[in-house]
Amino acid sequence: MSEPYERLVQSLKALPGLGYRSAEKIALHLLVEKPERAKELIERISIAKETLGACRICGNLTDQEICEICASEERESERLCVVESVTDLFAMEKAGVFHGKYHILMGKLSPVKGVGPDQLNISNLSERITEGKIEEVILALSNDMEGEATCHYLKNEVFLSENLKVTRIGFGLPSGGGVTYADQNTLENALQSRKILDT
Amino acid sequence: MSEPYERLVQSLKALPGLGYRSAEKIALHLLVEKPERAKELIERISIAKETLGACRICGNLTDQEICEICASEERESERLCVVESVTDLFAMEKAGVFHGKYHILMGKLSPVKGVGPDQLNISNLSERITEGKIEEVILALSNDMEGEATCHYLKNEVFLSENLKVTRIGFGLPSGGGVTYADQNTLENALQSRKILDT
Repeated sequence: MSEPYERLVQSLKALPGLGYRSAEKIALHLLVEKPERAKELIERISIAKETLGACRICGNLTDQEICEICASEERESERLCVVESVTDLFAMEKAGVFHGKYHILMGKLSPVKGVGPDQLNISNLSERITEGKIEEVILALSNDMEGEATCHYLKNEVFLSENLKVTRIGFGLPSGGGVTYADQNTLENALQSRKILDT
Repeated sequence: MSEPYERLVQSLKALPGLGYRSAEKIALHLLVEKPERAKELIERISIAKETLGACRICGNLTDQEICEICASEERESERLCVVESVTDLFAMEKAGVFHGKYHILMGKLSPVKGVGPDQLNISNLSERITEGKIEEVILALSNDMEGEATCHYLKNEVFLSENLKVTRIGFGLPSGGGVTYADQNTLENALQSRKILDT
């Protein structure tokens, strides 16, 4: 097919979660099947781009320079929860179980996908730590190899202050999950993080 | 979240194959994680929209008024293959097994999803049929309830000429597929379309 078509498909394919097939489907949808939607989509991306962006401090989505959470005086400034993405922050907020502040890495280290420290929102994180108000950093990263590597990197290269407590969220059976349906790694994690029962 | 964000997510969600979660992921990708990609994406949609569109005759993607296949004098004008989408046409062309012309319906009838005949590229199809050059219409629609309903509708409401041969592509085991892994409907279809073996 023609170059403008291929270039559009490549741009769509670069979006998270889209492969070549789904990118092609969307391109044809916008060009042939529902061409009226292309204009609307362009408009909405433009308007959202103009009004919204990343919080200068934590990377959260905001229509201000600094997001509501960072600006809030009611949130605990001593506790910082490091997450991979804004959707992870949304999930934490929806659960309503954390009352400190956040930092969004915008990904995790992945040598395979070519994601190194420079591609992540880390330099900003160092600055926040060295300011000295933060007592505990809670790493709420994925329970996988990349999440593991990212935690190690942050612990050994970024969180150098001796007074800083660095923790990682717990692993084990998810709520409602039974042993029968858990995979080997989950069971291993669950055994390792076992606790003494109160009597 | 703010209105521009929700409106963008809704527009993305309206694209084929995207649910709320994936639309949200893409919106945050464009606004927070890789904001430089939003501009590129807008440009590429705009350029593709300017240079490409649907063929006036069949609905195929083209940078002309009439696509290469419709304009070709080497393709058999007597045989018309009706497909659901441009990607279906691409698949047929890649297989290289059909040498006639195409007509793209841009969907299939689906009362559940609110897709009626008016939402499909059908009026154009009637015109092509009444021009009288076409001897056979091959319905290459999905092997599902909606594909079935669309075939019936076309046969009974659109293809009214008595001289017109209307066929539907065959169903059965896919190439490389074994009986063990085929579902009930596929086996039923395969049995119904059994053929006498030449000796």
